[in-house]
Parts: sequence; structure tokens; C-alpha cells
Amino acid sequence: MPFQQTGIPGLLIYEPKVLGDHRGYFFESYNANTFSAAGIDYSFVQDNQARSVYGVLRGLHYQLEPYAQTKLVRVLEGRIIDAVVDIREGSPTYGKSFVIELSADNKLQLLVPKGFAHGYAVISETAEVMYKCDNFYHKNSEGGIIYNDPALEIDWGIDLKDAIVSEKDLILPKLADVQHNFIFNS
Amino acid sequence: MPFQQTGIPGLLIYEPKVLGDHRGYFFESYNANTFSAAGIDYSFVQDNQARSVYGVLRGLHYQLEPYAQTKLVRVLEGRIIDAVVDIREGSPTYGKSFVIELSADNKLQLLVPKGFAHGYAVISETAEVMYKCDNFYHKNSEGGIIYNDPALEIDWGIDLKDAIVSEKDLILPKLADVQHNFIFNS
Ligand SMILES: Cc1cn([C@H]2C[C@H](O)[C@@H](COP(=O)(O)OP(=O)(O)O[C@H]3OC[C@@H](O)[C@H](O)[C@H]3O)O2)c(=O)[nH]c1=O
Ligand SMILES: Cc1cn([C@H]2C[C@H](O)[C@@H](COP(=O)(O)OP(=O)(O)O[C@H]3OC[C@@H](O)[C@H](O)[C@H]3O)O2)c(=O)[nH]c1=O
Repeated sequence: MPFQQTGIPGLLIYEPKVLGDHRGYFFESYNANTFSAAGIDYSFVQDNQARSVYGVLRGLHYQLEPYAQTKLVRVLEGRIIDAVVDIREGSPTYGKSFVIELSADNKLQLLVPKGFAHGYAVISETAEVMYKCDNFYHKNSEGGIIYNDPALEIDWGIDLKDAIVSEKDLILPKLADVQHNFIFNS
Repeated sequence: MPFQQTGIPGLLIYEPKVLGDHRGYFFESYNANTFSAAGIDYSFVQDNQARSVYGVLRGLHYQLEPYAQTKLVRVLEGRIIDAVVDIREGSPTYGKSFVIELSADNKLQLLVPKGFAHGYAVISETAEVMYKCDNFYHKNSEGGIIYNDPALEIDWGIDLKDAIVSEKDLILPKLADVQHNFIFNS
């Protein structure tokens, strides 16, 4: 099975199979059948890509229902610490965070269901990150949590004094003060 | 309009809008709505990614009907000469080739409809190429045309004596001898 559990229901790690030969390598970075075969059915409608320098921290973000997005996150160049927080009302792991290093080398992908706040910090000189999502961008439904909320206990892998953060992200609330409308479905 | 015509019906160049800020940049590398708005409706089910060294030439390939694939090709790192040949019976441009340089810098994407043979040559030290497709891989329906068929008049941007080609691709037939079953729909 190319999917690994994380201890948080629905949050999965996907590792594609890379086929090498004398030319380089080839891999299916996404295949809807591979996901369906594991009972995971999403229809991804948008791919986003961002380049960032060392220390850039983007997040933590989500879109409210009915615009919530499942995200499939991976790294095309460099290395990041990818972080999520479960904010589904009624989830046994509500408020719990999870971090994983994603890189162009390890080619791991994090499948982040609806009802999670998501963000990442760049720990290489530069990084190029890409994610697929199953719902379109909807600016007015964006929400977020401040990255340095101590309740989240996230180790971003950088000294937070060096963090390069957008103005929008610097004024996000703490988890305890956040507005969201996600319900956990077991 | 983010789409440019190429002179071959249905073959389009897509240029996403890149938004820069102090962190780096962000862009929607794919958005189904952007395509729908231009009357282009595909449901992409598989993403493929390949790394290659300088001189690697992959192609020219297609899958026969009913497994034919629309491909949306772009480059994540490095530079390639991307080439296609129109092999749709009844097309006003049947047998005509088209080449374009795709690179991580120019971020252009080539939308290759069903009924084209497709391939590329790497003109940078290494290149990472990705493409989306709207039909799954189906090994037994693969077809191809030999890259150096003079009838195609393709300038691959490399000295063909240096071309690194798979064994499978070295024995492909010329266009005149090729089996295919694509019909042009105007
Ligand atoms: C998410 C998104 C953004 N944009 C635009 C808006 C801004 O002009 C620019 C950058 O947007 P930000 O909200 O600053 O993006 P960023 O901080 O990179 O956050 C993104 O990456 C981390 C992800 O967790 C998050 O969901 C996503 O919003 O891109 C789009 O055009 N489409 C989008 O889907
Ligand atoms: C196309 C494809 C290939 N594979 C496997 C088969 C081989 O073990 C390996 C490499 O396959 P090749 O047929 O040698 O791929 P390549 O020569 O890179 O051709 C690909 O890139 C250029 C494209 O034009 C072409 O459609 C596509 O087949 O990957 C998959 O597992 N899934 C796929 O979708």
C-alpha cells in the first residue's frame, strides 16, 4: 500500500513509486485510480505552486465550508516542514498538530482532508511547493490560525525569529479564538 | 486570455499568471475554471513527472482510442524542446509538427489534444517535466513515431548524435508506416 497512516483519522502520507532508468526517472505523481483503489475519492480541480526562500512560513490556512478543500501537498524542489492542525468539531484528535518533512528527495505527499489548517516553513535555501485541491480558491471564505500559537506545539524547523511571514498571516488568531465550521465524520 | 493559438486546431499554449511578493511567488499551475471559461473542458485523472539528463529524448508517443489522452505539459526545472505531430485523420494540419521551448522560467504549458504524437528533448543539464492527462496509462494501447523521421521536420534543439533514447523508442516506425485511429473533429 502506498498510503501510510499518521495517527490522525483521514490524514495520510502517500509515497509514489519512482521508476529509474538510464535517462533519469519517471513516476506517476498522481493517479486517481491509485487513490480510488484505497477508497480515497477526490476530484481535484486546482493545482497551486509557490516558490519561497529559506525561512518563509506560509499558514496556517483553511477555507470554510462549503468551500473547504482537501489538499495533496508535495515538494518539487528543496525541503519544507509541512504542518497541519485538526480543527474538526468532534474529532478525537481535535486541536492536535502533525508535522512532516516533505522534500524533492523523499517525494512524500501529505493528503490533508477538509477540516485541517495547513501551512509550511521552508528549511532549504529555496523551495518549490505544489498542492492539488478539490475545491476552488474562494478568498472570502479563508480562515487561519497564527503559526506560533503555543497550544499547537508545532516545531517548524526554523528559528521563528527568522520567519518570513505575510502581513495577512501575522494577524491570524489563536486556535482558541478561531472561527470555523468543520464537523468530524468518522 | 491566458491561451494562445498555435496554427494547429486544438493545440494551445497556456500561460499562467504568476503573483510575486517578498516571500517568492505563487501561481495556479492549473485551474479547471480557467479552462472551462475558455470552453476547454477536460477531467484530468493522472499527473506524470519525469527527470532527465541533457540530451534525453522521450517520444514520440500516443495512446490509441479509446485510451487516447489529452496532455497538459509543463517544465518544473530546466528547459526542453517539446514537440507534437498532428495525426488526426481529416485534420487540415495532418502530419504537421509543432515545437515550443517549455522551461521552468517561461512557465508555458502546451495543451496537446487527443490525436497527437508527443515527445520532448532536454536542452538543459537536467530537466524535470510534468504533464497532466485525462485518460489513464494503458501500456497495450501505446503507439509511437520515430523521432528522427525526416517527414516530421522537427528541430529538437540537440545534436541527434547525442540523443539518449529508450530502446522502445529507437524502434518506432515512421509516420507513413504508423498505426493509429484518430479522427479529426473540427
Ligand atoms: C491560495 C490562492 C492564492 N491566490 C493568490 C492570492 C494572493 O495574491 C497570492 C498569494 O496568496 P496567499 O494567500 O498569500 O497564499 P499563501 O500564503 O502561499 O498560502 C497558500 O499556501 C499555503 C496553504 O496552506 C494555503 O492554503 C494557501 O493559501 O495568490 C490565488 O490566486 N489562488 C489561490 O488558490
Ligand atoms: C507513461 C507511463 C509510464 N509508466 C512506466 C512505464 C515504464 O516503466 C516507465 C517509463 O515509461 P516510458 O514509456 O519509457 O515513458 P517515457 O519514454 O518517459 O514517455 C512518457 O513521456 C513522454 C510522453 O510523450 C509519453 O506520453 C510518456 O509515455 O514508467 C507508468 O507507470 N505510467 C505511465 O503513465
